[in-house]
Parts: sequence; C-alpha cells; structure tokens
Amino acid sequence: MTKDKAVTQRTGNTPDRNHKITIHTMTNEILYLLLPDYAAHEVVYLSEAIACDKQAIKTNPKYVNKTVAATMDPICSCGSFRTLPDYTFDTMPDDYAALVLIGGFGWTREELATPVVPIVQRAIQTGKIIGAICNAASFLARHGFLNNVRHTGNGIDQLKLWGGDNYTNEAQYVHEQAVSDRRIVTANGSAALEFTRELLLLLENDTPERIEMYYQFYKQGFCTLFP
Amino acid sequence: MTKDKAVTQRTGNTPDRNHKITIHTMTNEILYLLLPDYAAHEVVYLSEAIACDKQAIKTNPKYVNKTVAATMDPICSCGSFRTLPDYTFDTMPDDYAALVLIGGFGWTREELATPVVPIVQRAIQTGKIIGAICNAASFLARHGFLNNVRHTGNGIDQLKLWGGDNYTNEAQYVHEQAVSDRRIVTANGSAALEFTRELLLLLENDTPERIEMYYQFYKQGFCTLFP
Repeated sequence: MTKDKAVTQRTGNTPDRNHKITIHTMTNEILYLLLPDYAAHEVVYLSEAIACDKQAIKTNPKYVNKTVAATMDPICSCGSFRTLPDYTFDTMPDDYAALVLIGGFGWTREELATPVVPIVQRAIQTGKIIGAICNAASFLARHGFLNNVRHTGNGIDQLKLWGGDNYTNEAQYVHEQAVSDRRIVTANGSAALEFTRELLLLLENDTPERIEMYYQFYKQGFCTLFP
Repeated sequence: MTKDKAVTQRTGNTPDRNHKITIHTMTNEILYLLLPDYAAHEVVYLSEAIACDKQAIKTNPKYVNKTVAATMDPICSCGSFRTLPDYTFDTMPDDYAALVLIGGFGWTREELATPVVPIVQRAIQTGKIIGAICNAASFLARHGFLNNVRHTGNGIDQLKLWGGDNYTNEAQYVHEQAVSDRRIVTANGSAALEFTRELLLLLENDTPERIEMYYQFYKQGFCTLFP
C-alpha cells in the first residue's frame, strides 16, 4: 500500500532547477487521534478488525493502525492504560486512509480540543474518511463540521449544547447508533460496534458479508450464535 | 485505600531483634496482565467502569487500574496500540484486589505464557479475584487451574484442546458468556460486557442495580434504551 509519489520541488536559490524527490506516502494508515482520558472502548473493535483476524495478527493487512497525539508523551485512557503515540499532530502524515476521533473527556477541555480543528479541516478538504464518536462527534458539532452531512452523536440535545450557534443542522440529525454520510461516520458512545461496522464498510476492509459477521459475533455473542 | 501494614521482620544475624517495617500495600489495585498482542476489547469496559463514570474520571475510585507485563517495554495490543506497563512480573505487588488475564495471541506462545503460571498459583493460594477471558481462560485450562471451579471459555472444544490431560473438569464447563465461581471469572472472547459485569459484582464496584445499568447501556445501546 506504500505509494511512491514523485514530487517536483523547486528550490528558492536555483529556480530553474528541479529536484525530484521520492516520498513514501503511507496511504493505508488509519490515524487514531488520542486526547487525554480517551475512551478506548470506542475503537478497540475497529483497530482489531484492521490488524488481525480470529487466528492471528494479519501478515498483509489492508490498513495499518497508528496513533496520533499532541506530543509523543504517553496518553492515559479513561481506563488508565497508558498509550504511546506513533505520531504527533506535527509529524502525522498528510496522506492517510482515515482519521478516527475517539471520544472521551479530553474534548471538554478547549486547550486540548482546539488544536484538532485544523487537522479536521484538512481532512475534510482532502476528502479523507473521518470517524467521530461520542464527545468527538459533539466536538465536530461545536466547530460546524456536521452542518453538511447526515449525522448522529450522543443525542440531539448534546449536539445542540456543544454546538450552540455553530451547529445549524438539526434537520440532518439521525437518532441511530451510527450514521455514515459523505465519508464522515458519527456515533454515540455506546455504539462502538456500529461505528466499527460503518467505518469498515467505507474502508472496504473486507466484504460486506464478513463485516456483518464480525459485527454480529460481538453484538450477539458466541453463546447466542452457537448455543 | 492504602493500608499500612506493620510487619515484624526477624533478621538472620540478630534473631532476638525485631525490626518494624511499614509497608504501604495498595490492596485496591486491579492488575491487568498484558502479553504481546493482547485483545484490548476484552477489558476496556471493565477498566472504564473502575476508573470513571459517565461524566469524568472518578476522584475517589474504589479501585485503581494498573498494568503488568514481563518487562517495562511497551506492549502492542492486537489492535496495534502500544501500552506502557506500570509493573513487571517482578515488581507487581503481592497484595492487590484482582488479577485480570486479558486474552489475545500471546497465550499461544509458551515462552510468554509460562512465566504467568506462578503468578496465577500465588493468586489462587491467596484468594485473589481472578478474571480470565478468551485464550487466557484456555491458558487456565492448560495448567489445571479450572479443575475445581465452574467455568467457561472459548467453547468446550477449545478448553479440551488447550488443556489436554491437564484439564479434567469438563463436567463443570458452562456454555454461557461468562461464569463466576469461587472468585474466578471466565468468559469467551465475545463476552467483554458479561466478563465486566461478573467482575464488577465480585469487586462490589457499585450496587448490583447500577452494574446492571452499565451492562445494559452498552449491551443494548443508547438508541434502543432511549428511542
């Protein structure tokens, strides 16, 4: 999935000379954006479906999971697991397959959430797949990112509370566990499995039938499916 | 929850002299044992119920989550998140509230799994609460730890396959998502929520009614409960 992109760069000093630079662009990376006290339960099913199957870690996965945070310091989940980021907001690649905004309590703190705004703006401008669940969906409402898409979140009241005047799209709020529209997937905090299913479908991580099997296995459980 | 224990230690050289040493024993720690490629989805609901409520990180939680691994090096989950351990197998406390063995692919590798055997032996001898899910339940079967308790796991065939001659308790296998007996909770890999519920009840982390609400919120989902 590594794409070699031939980039023609013109230097300032010698405007008549072109330097060809080969940049390895990992277009198959899925970036999970971590804020402090992030809700790990919301992305575990997604990240596992990407990286492994029932038997083992995939040897040739279609996508690769990477974590992104403000700095390279460990980020503590709201379950107290300390996670090491793979990238910072400054070192994350420009090109990638999807940006996943994990919910949690960090979104309630302006100083943590505001630096994410330009990252989402660029993602939308370049047509990236975006996932936002729980408070991360509320964050999208707050900054007007849900005004042109069908969407959901932690209920319409929460979206209006967070969004205030910036949220003008109550008409396209859908009261479902997860909603996928125009490459943006939103979900409420209890909808980890539905969020996963919609993102896996958008990413074409597997056939729709196998994605549905994965969903049902965890939704219904082993003992219900195989009594 | 820190308990100051006055320990009387007799030294070898001066057998008539007692040294009083104060040891701070964190009896409220829940230890999550991490092997490489651990299945994070299996413990996220548990660790979050311990550390936070719907609104925020708890200021006075009844228990504290800690992670334990063979070394202090980061451990990669099977969803590719890198987790920093809090303790090693050598530095983990003798006293704690519960030992949680997370499933995943590490249990299939003898060199990774065998060092966990004495940890489980001590936990059973000292009456600790033990949780084991998915391949970690199969690991318990392999080493004869399920021979005196009602239990479940990834199906009876898997337990017999892993356990071989060491597993002699097919009679007490129960085909349910999670089973709690004699302070040991076992579950299959799709049963993260049921595993969580049984452990929260054993730990008396909250009232049974509130533990059931927590379970149902994630099992049924926000849009089913609040249509």
